[in-house]
Amino acid sequence: MSILQTLILLSFLLSASHAAVQDFCVADLSAPEGPAGYSCKKVSAVTVNDFVFSGLGVAGNTSNLIKAVATPAFVTQFPGLNGLGISLVRLDMAPGGVIPLHTHPGGSEVILVLEGSICAGFISSSANTVYLKTLNKGDSMIFPQGLLHFQLNAGKVPALAFVSFSSPSPGLQILDFALFANNFPSELVEATTFLDDAQVKKLKGILGGTG
Amino acid sequence: MSILQTLILLSFLLSASHAAVQDFCVADLSAPEGPAGYSCKKVSAVTVNDFVFSGLGVAGNTSNLIKAVATPAFVTQFPGLNGLGISLVRLDMAPGGVIPLHTHPGGSEVILVLEGSICAGFISSSANTVYLKTLNKGDSMIFPQGLLHFQLNAGKVPALAFVSFSSPSPGLQILDFALFANNFPSELVEATTFLDDAQVKKLKGILGGTG
Amino acid sequence: MSILQTLILLSFLLSASHAAVQDFCVADLSAPEGPAGYSCKKVSAVTVNDFVFSGLGVAGNTSNLIKAVATPAFVTQFPGLNGLGISLVRLDMAPGGVIPLHTHPGGSEVILVLEGSICAGFISSSANTVYLKTLNKGDSMIFPQGLLHFQLNAGKVPALAFVSFSSPSPGLQILDFALFANNFPSELVEATTFLDDAQVKKLKGILGGTG
Amino acid sequence: MSILQTLILLSFLLSASHAAVQDFCVADLSAPEGPAGYSCKKVSAVTVNDFVFSGLGVAGNTSNLIKAVATPAFVTQFPGLNGLGISLVRLDMAPGGVIPLHTHPGGSEVILVLEGSICAGFISSSANTVYLKTLNKGDSMIFPQGLLHFQLNAGKVPALAFVSFSSPSPGLQILDFALFANNFPSELVEATTFLDDAQVKKLKGILGGTG
Amino acid sequence: MSILQTLILLSFLLSASHAAVQDFCVADLSAPEGPAGYSCKKVSAVTVNDFVFSGLGVAGNTSNLIKAVATPAFVTQFPGLNGLGISLVRLDMAPGGVIPLHTHPGGSEVILVLEGSICAGFISSSANTVYLKTLNKGDSMIFPQGLLHFQLNAGKVPALAFVSFSSPSPGLQILDFALFANNFPSELVEATTFLDDAQVKKLKGILGGTG
Amino acid sequence: MSILQTLILLSFLLSASHAAVQDFCVADLSAPEGPAGYSCKKVSAVTVNDFVFSGLGVAGNTSNLIKAVATPAFVTQFPGLNGLGISLVRLDMAPGGVIPLHTHPGGSEVILVLEGSICAGFISSSANTVYLKTLNKGDSMIFPQGLLHFQLNAGKVPALAFVSFSSPSPGLQILDFALFANNFPSELVEATTFLDDAQVKKLKGILGGTG
Repeated sequence: MSILQTLILLSFLLSASHAAVQDFCVADLSAPEGPAGYSCKKVSAVTVNDFVFSGLGVAGNTSNLIKAVATPAFVTQFPGLNGLGISLVRLDMAPGGVIPLHTHPGGSEVILVLEGSICAGFISSSANTVYLKTLNKGDSMIFPQGLLHFQLNAGKVPALAFVSFSSPSPGLQILDFALFANNFPSELVEATTFLDDAQVKKLKGILGGTG
Repeated sequence: MSILQTLILLSFLLSASHAAVQDFCVADLSAPEGPAGYSCKKVSAVTVNDFVFSGLGVAGNTSNLIKAVATPAFVTQFPGLNGLGISLVRLDMAPGGVIPLHTHPGGSEVILVLEGSICAGFISSSANTVYLKTLNKGDSMIFPQGLLHFQLNAGKVPALAFVSFSSPSPGLQILDFALFANNFPSELVEATTFLDDAQVKKLKGILGGTG
Repeated sequence: MSILQTLILLSFLLSASHAAVQDFCVADLSAPEGPAGYSCKKVSAVTVNDFVFSGLGVAGNTSNLIKAVATPAFVTQFPGLNGLGISLVRLDMAPGGVIPLHTHPGGSEVILVLEGSICAGFISSSANTVYLKTLNKGDSMIFPQGLLHFQLNAGKVPALAFVSFSSPSPGLQILDFALFANNFPSELVEATTFLDDAQVKKLKGILGGTG
Repeated sequence: MSILQTLILLSFLLSASHAAVQDFCVADLSAPEGPAGYSCKKVSAVTVNDFVFSGLGVAGNTSNLIKAVATPAFVTQFPGLNGLGISLVRLDMAPGGVIPLHTHPGGSEVILVLEGSICAGFISSSANTVYLKTLNKGDSMIFPQGLLHFQLNAGKVPALAFVSFSSPSPGLQILDFALFANNFPSELVEATTFLDDAQVKKLKGILGGTG
Repeated sequence: MSILQTLILLSFLLSASHAAVQDFCVADLSAPEGPAGYSCKKVSAVTVNDFVFSGLGVAGNTSNLIKAVATPAFVTQFPGLNGLGISLVRLDMAPGGVIPLHTHPGGSEVILVLEGSICAGFISSSANTVYLKTLNKGDSMIFPQGLLHFQLNAGKVPALAFVSFSSPSPGLQILDFALFANNFPSELVEATTFLDDAQVKKLKGILGGTG
Repeated sequence: MSILQTLILLSFLLSASHAAVQDFCVADLSAPEGPAGYSCKKVSAVTVNDFVFSGLGVAGNTSNLIKAVATPAFVTQFPGLNGLGISLVRLDMAPGGVIPLHTHPGGSEVILVLEGSICAGFISSSANTVYLKTLNKGDSMIFPQGLLHFQLNAGKVPALAFVSFSSPSPGLQILDFALFANNFPSELVEATTFLDDAQVKKLKGILGGTG
């Protein structure tokens, strides 16, 4: 008997287990989703393209008022990330551009600046301490899970950054959207934020909120 | 371009990721269940009522021999808890009422006494140490995961308590039910507990056990 | 040989393992803390009182402007919770009282209303949907991890509620404190929230913020 | 420059990270323990012997009344298991030997019978269903975390089995020890188990319990 | 009212929760699989046989060139393991038999030698340290998750060992199979391993690889 | 009483909990390390610089034989990552440069190509399937935890890539180092890899291995 035969035999004997090995679990976005993520695509239907994503190579259009744009590679864009505890986002920020205060309820973040300079910060919950830093090309900065943070291009040239998360679907709650871009009743917004009525109504007007 | 247009643009650009954000995973109790919990209800079908439960507001009927009753708000009663690592139970105990020795295989517990006084205890596995305390109104006590514990209303007035768990489905194994309320053969019960045959048969008789 | 001798023998033979059993890990608050929690107190020094906490039995003083107060039983107050994935808070709210918009970066929450009625709500990140409900006595409501939420006593009588968390240290980030009660430079607050300068400075003045 | 030099360079450049790689975390049993396990021994002090244990090769003495003995390889006996989610136990059972009803609060178990035959069973919490099976040489059986279970040598020859757990310190709560081998007051035992006073006192007498 | 009636009442009142208790989640291998494992079989269809596996009792045929064979009890063979963090494998090794260098990407391993002697080893990533030991009957050894390791029967008699894993599907990547038993282009194998072309092609020939 | 006084009161009442909030756990690299990571630096000693790392901005020197270099930002270089489930690496690869076949035992990886083009691949354990792709600027690719993979600059210009991991210390096991750069006895290497003696000794010679 040859080594080939032997190893084929070994392979055969182990083959039942092979079918169950969860090397990966590429998301079948049309199948049931549970607390741990999406159902897995059949391994026989998985190709290398499930593990490759080209969407982060395209610069976003920053010709808008906040002069910034975020392009996500979360599990819904990049199904191979399902269950793997990681995802990415591309940030393009024109001079003066800003990613307004926001949180990611489901994951921690690390930003890496590739072009330009970005003023970034987060606020701790333990003592409302503000951690601020101007990041230059090559600098990276951590934003721990669930804490309010922002990025702002304080420089004179466009900024480019890539962001990594510790979850395939970290979530994103932008403060202004949460307060002013929905039907959250103004009186409740005011009562729970101590903002003035005029301020609330002004931003609701801008952001399309009602109530 | 207005701020509104800008933010709507940002919103649009991020919208693909929004669909995947697992802010929550309300249980679809009729869909497949996995080791991490039930499948998620479609977000478009979720309403505030999936996050609200009124069943704990109703006092249970303690006009029974153990003079106590437990009303659960686990994931099957309260589907919004799916995947969130938390659940509740209401305990009503008449004077002399008892929640017999039991374990929760899947979660730790904290009881909070709101009315009356409750004698509670658990037994550690490390040295069979008994941790006993009489809890009065406002007292809370921890019962670590999987350890035998009990609650007993040793006072002269009804007791009310609320219990929190570290799991949406902590499980419940009541010792007497496990031993005497099923078809566990008496000879095996006796061999593995060292209880007398008469004792086993008496409790099997009371609890409807066979064998 | 008696059963006693036998079981003692069994006990002896198993005794080495007993020392290592992590039935619980009561926090030694003065010892090193790691990502999973505090170091464990020696089991020989643990008593039932490490598992009992009476601080939630005392009504907080709501004679203040927000007419509300929160009394925590997190791991620093209640060391027995260390590593167990659960904690509690008591909420006392006078009529008109409010717990301003806030998040818990580290845990999900369930509130249970015991007296009065509370208007509560949270905002999802997926579509900025506002989930609002007026909760009466006996009602419970879920606030998923990391999402902005609030509680407000909209009734005419005091409200009392108990809150459970899925973590022994869920954290607490109150929006107004994060924005206005520190040295977060006003120009950055404004640039990242779109709030007016006057509004920011007014609230900084009230909350003692600088910059 | 040679491949050697190149790879040494690569090695050097990566060396800072190497120090942090948690390939393993051999327990330093004298250092602080946290919820996730013991502190790690310095890697420079680790030898192959930290990963090797010979204690399971020695048959336990079953010349006792329960005619059975368990020899553990938990993290305190086998420090290399720290943090790895696995441990072992050896069971020696003479004919008629029994491992009385017990639970492991911290892990699931799989038994593998190597000699003789063992009657084993566990009781589910969902419906108090008893899952019973007589296991012969080569059979394995699962006992899910936290559920009451037992093993009994119903054969005429000695039985030998090896048990695996899903935790380096699964814990062990033997029902009879928890009830009768400590100072758990008899009246509380009786009130919370419905056992007769005579039965409780008899077993307390045998097992050395007081109260 | 009798105790029976009382407890039945208690049972009834708790019954809603019972349906949701995840004592276990036996794999339904034909239903969707997610990152945490397979969907659960309906509890009503579960029998004791879902928790019992006899396949490890049969010696594998070692009449092959590597003179060794591995018989798995992973979740696909033993569905009761689903979600429980544990699995087993039986190793039969004739004299001179070898389980070639391999890794388990998804779990740590402990081997227990029952017959013969096995030379085993693993290589750490931190400093490429080789941990080698000759294991005799009764010895156990740990192979931490993801590290290259091997087993070799260096004795003159057949060896038998049982292996436990910290996952129900730990995976198995055999180095030679990964390099030489597929269509991995030879030039890429050579460029990324520094093996000679002749060596690569020789082993590809033996193992059936192409390219 | 002013809002300020009120909120300060609220702050005071919550302050005990604040001390315990684990917003983050910056590694104290000189304190005990456990299975979940390093001990936390005192919050009072933490500054924004614990969350900022500049080491990835410096191009590595690729003037070596493999024409490639990896610069890590793991927890030992970037202590703020402790406990957060994320880390980064910078890859610089000259034309023809290669990161030889390797695994990360402790985390999954996503590469993002910023300059040049990189041929990358991984091998699944389930069927030894090779997933190969040439990645151009802007492309990202996933390498699931524990699987053998490589990167190779097949282009004519230097390549630059950033890599994210799902762990603060994912580990790194380079195949050639594990086999040939230590004292792994040649006869064992050969017996467990089927490589020829000459091949093993040649690479041991190059890589400085002994035995």
